[in-house]
Formats: sequence, structure tokens, C-alpha cells
Amino acid sequence: MRRVVLNAGEKFNNGHLKRTSAFNAQALKAATDIVDAVREGGDAALRDFTARFDGVELESFRVSQEAIDAALATLDPNLAKSLQHAADQVREFHERQLQESMFAVRPNGALIGSKLTPIEAVGIYVPGGRALYPSSVIMNAIPAQVAGVERIVCVTPPTKDGSLDPAVLEACRICGVSEIYSIGGAQAIAALAYGTETIEPVNKITGPGNAYVAAAKKIVMGDVGIDMIAGPSEVCVVADETADPKMVAIDLMAQAEHDPLASCYLVCFDAAYADAVEANIEQHMKRSTRADITTASLRDQGLIVVCPDMETAMGAVNVIAPEHLEMHIANAMGQLGAVRNAGAIFLGEWTPEAVGDYVAGPNHTLPTGGTAKFSSPLGTMDFMKHSSVIQYTRQSLADDGDAIVAIADREGLWSHAESVRLRLQELNRG
Amino acid sequence: MRRVVLNAGEKFNNGHLKRTSAFNAQALKAATDIVDAVREGGDAALRDFTARFDGVELESFRVSQEAIDAALATLDPNLAKSLQHAADQVREFHERQLQESMFAVRPNGALIGSKLTPIEAVGIYVPGGRALYPSSVIMNAIPAQVAGVERIVCVTPPTKDGSLDPAVLEACRICGVSEIYSIGGAQAIAALAYGTETIEPVNKITGPGNAYVAAAKKIVMGDVGIDMIAGPSEVCVVADETADPKMVAIDLMAQAEHDPLASCYLVCFDAAYADAVEANIEQHMKRSTRADITTASLRDQGLIVVCPDMETAMGAVNVIAPEHLEMHIANAMGQLGAVRNAGAIFLGEWTPEAVGDYVAGPNHTLPTGGTAKFSSPLGTMDFMKHSSVIQYTRQSLADDGDAIVAIADREGLWSHAESVRLRLQELNRG
Repeated sequence: MRRVVLNAGEKFNNGHLKRTSAFNAQALKAATDIVDAVREGGDAALRDFTARFDGVELESFRVSQEAIDAALATLDPNLAKSLQHAADQVREFHERQLQESMFAVRPNGALIGSKLTPIEAVGIYVPGGRALYPSSVIMNAIPAQVAGVERIVCVTPPTKDGSLDPAVLEACRICGVSEIYSIGGAQAIAALAYGTETIEPVNKITGPGNAYVAAAKKIVMGDVGIDMIAGPSEVCVVADETADPKMVAIDLMAQAEHDPLASCYLVCFDAAYADAVEANIEQHMKRSTRADITTASLRDQGLIVVCPDMETAMGAVNVIAPEHLEMHIANAMGQLGAVRNAGAIFLGEWTPEAVGDYVAGPNHTLPTGGTAKFSSPLGTMDFMKHSSVIQYTRQSLADDGDAIVAIADREGLWSHAESVRLRLQELNRG
Repeated sequence: MRRVVLNAGEKFNNGHLKRTSAFNAQALKAATDIVDAVREGGDAALRDFTARFDGVELESFRVSQEAIDAALATLDPNLAKSLQHAADQVREFHERQLQESMFAVRPNGALIGSKLTPIEAVGIYVPGGRALYPSSVIMNAIPAQVAGVERIVCVTPPTKDGSLDPAVLEACRICGVSEIYSIGGAQAIAALAYGTETIEPVNKITGPGNAYVAAAKKIVMGDVGIDMIAGPSEVCVVADETADPKMVAIDLMAQAEHDPLASCYLVCFDAAYADAVEANIEQHMKRSTRADITTASLRDQGLIVVCPDMETAMGAVNVIAPEHLEMHIANAMGQLGAVRNAGAIFLGEWTPEAVGDYVAGPNHTLPTGGTAKFSSPLGTMDFMKHSSVIQYTRQSLADDGDAIVAIADREGLWSHAESVRLRLQELNRG
């Protein structure tokens, strides 16, 4: 792993990072054409792109209930139990996020409030290939279900042999998702956003995907809602001398094994400690079934930051704004207030990231690539929306009328001012 | 205004609407090139685009405090008082939206929670020309201020004569915004997102803008956060026989005068009533100072929906999903539950939309073009972010460990499983 050694008074800055931007002009232009074509061509265009990009000729995109049942019959019961346990705890946490409609009334009778309503239809993108994860289904579908979304649709790229993943289908079953389509890429996003002859459009699209899926989500955004644009996964481990290098090593590898582009950061306080962690990585690696990806990621994206003190370390954390932050230090909870930017914070030696990836309850859909500086984990409220509510009385309009007219006149909006003037006249008459 | 008359049993549908989509391939491609150029060229590129699009040669983009003070000296005191009153009530409402960090502890000791932190730096886009509104500054800057954002920046296109709007500057002053730049368009969005030699980048960009600004916001989204993509403004007025056609007429005009593309919908129950409203519009129009825009909007975008009953009417409202909904009916609050999709709901005859545009308190930055189906008014929480917090104990890891290992193994993530297996071994040892 690359190393940066900071001396007393030195600060970690963006220059120490090698992040790739979410801006991808090539993908944006390519996805714009694909979305355009599906919007115009519907199912026919969808079929063409599926043949071209997935190498599969599909008559119908909808996965039949028979196919689902057949796949589910092959599922390992212990895995089913584990997915149910994960779903239960994820549901329990996301139920705590539910908010209430609210209103208040001013002394002059003006009622101001906010009404909460679930989104009607949501589409979840489940990536194919290496990233086909049942946990993604749980983490996207449960918040939508808790929010009260009526229609939840899953799309996932077709496999060449038409096979289906029973674990993903079981996660769909647990979350009450039965409308599943074998489509992927930018064309799937376009189909969800604008609909086709056989696919009803949705109101919001969530779930991770590759650069073209991300670009397509940007493009359709505004016609439908989208979640964040997810980049490669990241972990930052802050470790002091109390942390077992063996555990720190495996936790770093648990991020690196996702993707050669995954980024692992070790923030520690002593070069010898960093050496110990790297030695343990070498040992673990011999047993890893994903040594190739893990090695490539740590070599090309990994970064060790050796800091003179905790303040410098927490400063580095907030610049990195990691998707996952593990605090393996003596008093982890004591430093929580110093964490400004992080998607999810894992405290202490008994909380490896895998805990949060699957069963702890909080969502594993987290801001990546530094977006934790401005965005949040996916949650229940991402599947609901507010409507403001305002009810004025004669008195409240009498009180505020002059201010409204003054601003409207200044903005040159005659009818805005007149809509209040006419009512004030009526008040003065009666 | 165009008319649709629905008979008993007939439902209003999207086919009755003539909405333009937020998807604009031409603007997306043009904005992609502009953003790319500013990212590469910094201030120099910014200067070129400002000369090309705004027709102004600028040495420095920053508006000096001297220039601000000089402009403020010319401000009408009554307007200043009115802006302060608006800001006070907007602040009071947005303070009600502040949420708290939370955590819970399971019987087995697992702590799960969510930590709230303000975003550090936010950029507000204030459109120039016809749409230069001090109220926009208040509605964007106050929620950011209430959330605790440390750095709030305003950008607004330069005027050919270098003049500044004292009302906009007063709104900035009231909201504590002193970092203001004379830049606009896609190039301003790029400068805020990626920074230049003289402009520090921000973490999130909000505020309305034209098609290129909207496209640029889509493009930089992911590198920074953005608010919604705002389209032309809209109002839908539901009026029964108890509503004064004179008031309904002026309220419709108050939306139409914004923009020839603004959309006004009248949902009523009787063709004769619709005639009465149109007759009143004709009368008011003689006095309007914006008759040209107002007439064009009502003629080209206006729609009257005559419904057989209230259920059909509310069905139409939810298909339209209007930015602003005025309920001029006998029991407006009684129908609130039937409203599913609307940005802001104005109840009763004493609540013209202008009340909410300026002083009522709820935000006037609202979802347009049907996006109320999946998005919400701008609010305080749009300027804060959550970080999930998880702390497991020996016991909680012992309880959940097997489920984590089962799912990780199924997903083929060896190190994920191993990070838990190694800890379970240690637990069993001691």
C-alpha cells in the first residue's frame, strides 16, 4: 500500500488522494443515446440493447413466477434463515427512521405544516455478474416497504444461460418483490424511467450499477427520482496500538476484495504498526479465494496514512470522507464527535464492516468517493416525500399582507401582489 | 385555456397533460462540454464563457463588499422590513424541521444509530434577468443557515452594466451570505463544483436555473450534491361553487405571469364556473403589467379540467402532481388526505399562493413538472447528512456472526466472512 507520513503540524489534503471523479463525459454521452433510443423505441430498443450488451435474445423481460419458484426450491435453508434475520434487523432499524406529518398554528391562526406520503412506485437496480448480492435487494427494498411504497420492481441483467440466483430471488420474496425484469445497463434505467409497452414506469430508481447505469440515472433524474451515484466501495480504518493488526488486516481486505478499484485507507500512528498490518495481510492473502482482486486493489488504491496524533488522524478521516469508517482505537465512541464526514461508522474491535454490510440494521447503501461530505445512507425517508401545507385566516392574511405585496411588487410580479390586494380589500369591506 | 370535460367514471390521465420532459439531450451535451472546459481551464475558461454568454468581460468574479454596501444604501426601508419579516417566518418553520442524531441499543448490546452533521459548504444559484428574486435567496440560504452550514456562497449572472440588485443583496445580508460571485450558467455550476483558482469548490449546489444550469447540475451531481431539477412553475386550483371566481382568476394569473411556459390548471365541477373564471381573467388582464407573459402562458399551457365529482377531481390533482395546489373548496382541510402528490398545498380562500411564495414559512423551492410524485420541498435536512453508527459487543457478534458468515460465503466474499470467523474464534478461545 502507498504510504503518506505526516509530521506534527502537517495536514492531510485532497492532493494525497487519487480519487477518480464521478464526472464521465464519455459514459454520459453514450448513456444519453441509449436512454434516448429506449424512450423512442420501447421494448424493441430494449431487446436490441439486451442482445448487444448482454448477448441474450429475450422475448419477454418479465421473470415468470414459475421460474422464480423453481429457483427458490434450490435454496439452502440456512442461507434463507440468515437472510430473514438480516431482513428483520434491517426492517427494525428503518422503522425507527419513519417520520410523522407535522403542523403548527401561529397565534394569528396561520397553519403551517408538512404532510408525508409514500412514493407510489420504485425500481431497484440489482447489478449482475460479480456484484449480484442478495443483501443489496434487502437494503433497497426494505426501506421502500417500510415507507409504504405500493409497487417495488427489481431489474437485473440477464445471464447468458438464463439462470437466476435463488438467494437474490429469496431476498425479493422476503421483501415482497415479485415484479422482476431481466434487463440491465442504461437501457434498464431508461425502461424504468419512461416505461415501455410491457414495463410500467416507476417514480424513483435506486441501487448500484456501473458507469453507464450511473450516467443513465443522472440523465433520467428529474423525470424520476434517483438515489446517490455510487462509486467503488471504500473503507478507512483508524487503528491505534490497542488494535490487533490481524483484525485490521482482514478488515482492509474485506473492502479490497470487492473490486480492483475499491479503496482501502489505514490511518495509524506508527510506521512499525503499519508494517505489522501489511505482514498480516500477506498471511491472510494466502488463504483468500479472491487474492487477485484483493491484491490489485490494495496495491493500486490502498493508502496508509501515518499520523503524529489523533487530531491529525481525524482530520485525514474528514478529508477522505470514507464510505465505511472503522475506529479500532482505545476510546472509539469518545472520538465520534470528531467524525464529520463518513457514510457509516463502525466502533471498536467487535464491529467489522461485514456486520453492517448484512445484519446490523443500518443501510449498506452508503455515500462513496467523498460524497459523504454531502449525502447520507439510503433510508426510509428516501421513499417518502413531503408536501407543505399552508392555511391562512383573515387575521393571518391581514398581518402578513403588506409584506407579501411589498416583495411581490419589488419582484415585478403584479398578479402575485394583486392576489393579496384583492383579498385585503375584501377584508376591509367586511 | 384548453379544456377537458370528464364524465362520470372517466379518469384524468397523463395523456391529458402536455408536459415537456426534464430530459434534454441537446442541453446535456452542450453543458457537458462547458463543465469539462471549466474543469480543465478554471478562471480563464470561466472568463471566456462569461464573455460569450453574458457579454461581459470580468477581471474578478467576486462581488466586492464596497459594491454590496453601495447597492444596499439604495434599498427601500419598507422592502427591507418585509424581507426581514419573511426571513423570520421562514427561519421559524425551517427550525421545526431540524432533526436529532439518534441511537438505540439492542438487549445483546448492539448499538445502532445515526449521527447528523451539517454540510460544510453550499453554493446557491440565483438566476439573473426576469427571475432575479430576493425571495429565492431567503428560501435557499435560510435552511442552510438553520442546518449549520459554515460557508454559503451565492452565484448570479453578471449584468451588462455591472449593476447589482439591492433587494437580492439585502436578502444575502439577512441570511449572512457575503461571498457572492458574478457568474452564471453551466459555467457557474462547474466552478462551484470543481473550483477554480479564485473560487473554492462547495459540497452542494441548490437554486433554480435554465435548461443549461439544470443539465450542468445533473452532470456534476455525484461530485457535489444538488437539489432538485426545477422546471417551469405550476399551480393547480381546485374550485367548487363556494370559491369566488375573481380570486381563482387572479391566483391562476399569479402563476402564469412567471413564464410563458408556466402551467396553470383549474379543476372545477361545472363549465359555467370555468366560464366565470375565464371572464374574470379577462377583466384582471387589462390591469396586469405582465399581460403578455400571462396571456401566453394561459393560452399555451393552461388547462381546465371539469370533473363530475370530488373524487375525480382529486384523482386529476394526483396525476398532475402540481408544484402548487390551491384548494378553494367548502371543506379544504377535509380533502387533505386525498392529496397524494403536490409540492405545497394552500387551503381555503385566504391562502393565495403568494402567501407561501414569500412569508408563510415553508419553502417556495418546490418539486415541479410532476416531480412531486417522488420529491419534496427544499428543507433544512437537505443541508445536513446522516452517518450510520454501529457498535457491536462480544455478545452481539456472537449472536449475529453465523448469519453474517452464511451471507458473505454465499456472496463469495471470503474476507467478509473471515473478518467475522477470526473474531468468533477469539470469542470461543476466551
